[in-house]
Amino acid sequence: MATSDKSTSRPRSRGAGRPKGDDRDLREHLLDVAAAQFARLGIEGTSLRAIATEARVTPAMLHYYFGDKARFTQALIEERLLPAAAPLREHLEQAGDDPRALVEAFARGVGEIVARNPWLPPLWVREVLCEGGSLRELMFSQIVPNLPQMLAQRFAAAQARGQLHPGLDPRLLVVSLVGLTMFPAAGAPIWRRAFGAEGLGADVLLNHTLALLEHGVAPAASGDST
Amino acid sequence: MATSDKSTSRPRSRGAGRPKGDDRDLREHLLDVAAAQFARLGIEGTSLRAIATEARVTPAMLHYYFGDKARFTQALIEERLLPAAAPLREHLEQAGDDPRALVEAFARGVGEIVARNPWLPPLWVREVLCEGGSLRELMFSQIVPNLPQMLAQRFAAAQARGQLHPGLDPRLLVVSLVGLTMFPAAGAPIWRRAFGAEGLGADVLLNHTLALLEHGVAPAASGDST
Repeated sequence: MATSDKSTSRPRSRGAGRPKGDDRDLREHLLDVAAAQFARLGIEGTSLRAIATEARVTPAMLHYYFGDKARFTQALIEERLLPAAAPLREHLEQAGDDPRALVEAFARGVGEIVARNPWLPPLWVREVLCEGGSLRELMFSQIVPNLPQMLAQRFAAAQARGQLHPGLDPRLLVVSLVGLTMFPAAGAPIWRRAFGAEGLGADVLLNHTLALLEHGVAPAASGDST
Repeated sequence: MATSDKSTSRPRSRGAGRPKGDDRDLREHLLDVAAAQFARLGIEGTSLRAIATEARVTPAMLHYYFGDKARFTQALIEERLLPAAAPLREHLEQAGDDPRALVEAFARGVGEIVARNPWLPPLWVREVLCEGGSLRELMFSQIVPNLPQMLAQRFAAAQARGQLHPGLDPRLLVVSLVGLTMFPAAGAPIWRRAFGAEGLGADVLLNHTLALLEHGVAPAASGDST
């Protein structure tokens, strides 16, 4: 699927009737606006009217592109949420069976997802992690189906070969990986403020996470100056 | 403050006027019910009436004990939320300056908090981690004031002494610790289901987390059979 050139101007007019040009750009723009609003206010807490206002179009135009809220939400899932997970799958497929390569692939994959889709971590907190979240079922069935189980199996196999520390639980290692990647992304507004670390970048977070996964907290062996 | 004997029966009657016996027990029971409902539905999403219904008392009795919702919420914060954090502070105070002891104290402290207050992780997700959560400010000002900063300073000092891996960021290590302890507790309903791991206990989680923090994913050195 080719991506449209985002540098072209988007229609802002409130003209009635069907939009004539830049159709795909406007559609993409509406989905972007909705993703950000869903992340901020929750899917249930966001009305089509609020999205239209934020995107500076009429509710009628939003309806023309997407229909009702249920169909709009479904479009957002199919065109934003499902494609967002792709980098994680790609990194994991290339990682092979070495557990160190696997955990690094996971951290890099999530890092790419977050960098490309800053709306995703807060949406994940609200609609997956929160009890009653409306995307929890979907996460299991469509977004990352079988991914946790597949990873746990590969960690268990690596442990059986002696390539993974025997004190780890292969299933909980998957949980730890989410806690070391998605959680810091979702909590960034909190910890950036607590530490006055507004400028702390994604590369620092990734390097820290990889060091922790590789070494634990133990100091480097003498002579190792990395 | 002495804790009352929870084995005595709690008043369930809807009698009018001031409750005469077991006052403290009923008060504690009402706070317990409210904590669970706040965790499930959010503070804004829970009415005093719903708490009264769940606790099988009249709204008037709830009002007699606590006043309006704002005062009720404040009582819950002072009598449930603030005391809940105590085990973490105690463990950390006893840990000294060794970073391995500190991270272990953190994991054990959070483990105790979660075991004693199962309502806390989901409440933390909804009211602290969610954007706009109503307890986020309170966490900084009252629940764990200065705790993240104090921990980061001790990690930085340990790193300067060569006791902490130089690849780690002392501030992000605090974030990692939360992601390895509170996040798995909050996400337990999700990962237990994903892995069919209903019976996986808190001790398994703690041992896994300590192993990861101590060693990373690297296999044990030959001869080390732990």
